[in-house]
Amino acid sequence: MKPLLRPDLTFRLNGRLWVETDDDRFMGIGRLELLTLIREQGSISKAAQQMGMSYKRAWELVASLNAQAARPLVLTQAGGKRGGGAEVTPEGEALIAEFRELQARFQEFLRAEAVRLL
Amino acid sequence: MKPLLRPDLTFRLNGRLWVETDDDRFMGIGRLELLTLIREQGSISKAAQQMGMSYKRAWELVASLNAQAARPLVLTQAGGKRGGGAEVTPEGEALIAEFRELQARFQEFLRAEAVRLL
Repeated sequence: MKPLLRPDLTFRLNGRLWVETDDDRFMGIGRLELLTLIREQGSISKAAQQMGMSYKRAWELVASLNAQAARPLVLTQAGGKRGGGAEVTPEGEALIAEFRELQARFQEFLRAEAVRLL
Repeated sequence: MKPLLRPDLTFRLNGRLWVETDDDRFMGIGRLELLTLIREQGSISKAAQQMGMSYKRAWELVASLNAQAARPLVLTQAGGKRGGGAEVTPEGEALIAEFRELQARFQEFLRAEAVRLL
């Protein structure tokens, strides 16, 4: 592709990956960030805040993740609407790790293709 | 990832690739479809119509493609605002072919990862 491109510009190959069902997104880079921040912060509302996302949206994403998982990925503790903490389960940790590894292999694919093409 | 997923749902791995500069998208799946339709139809307006895209938007995408290419990818012929035809150049053909091959390798990457993960 390189001979087709303006030599004075810098081109990058970029992309996104996600796991979906017929009805819903299951996992992607945004949900990975949310899960990672919930683990760090122990709280859905604090994680949402750090991502500049509404609490309602973050809560919906967590509900969607849990609804499609064999066992819960995030446990929320009692204590009022925003009062309780949230905890990433061992299954949630495994999802974080596996999706990160997939992302790393995808970045390697993009890197190799960029070397070939750009 | 499979043991983490609800066994009664069907999960797919999906994704998108694109080539970009700091300032603009250069090439992606939508632009591939547009170029392919311009080649088939010999007309930006007919290609736009088939994609359910406005003529203005299609024209902007062609202008963006050409502006970032070393040589024009699409030539438009005179004949009034929407009157003339449009032609994909040999460079445009090469871009179509190379991006399709990249897409095919990406689909293979997705397929192999899905077998591993889902």
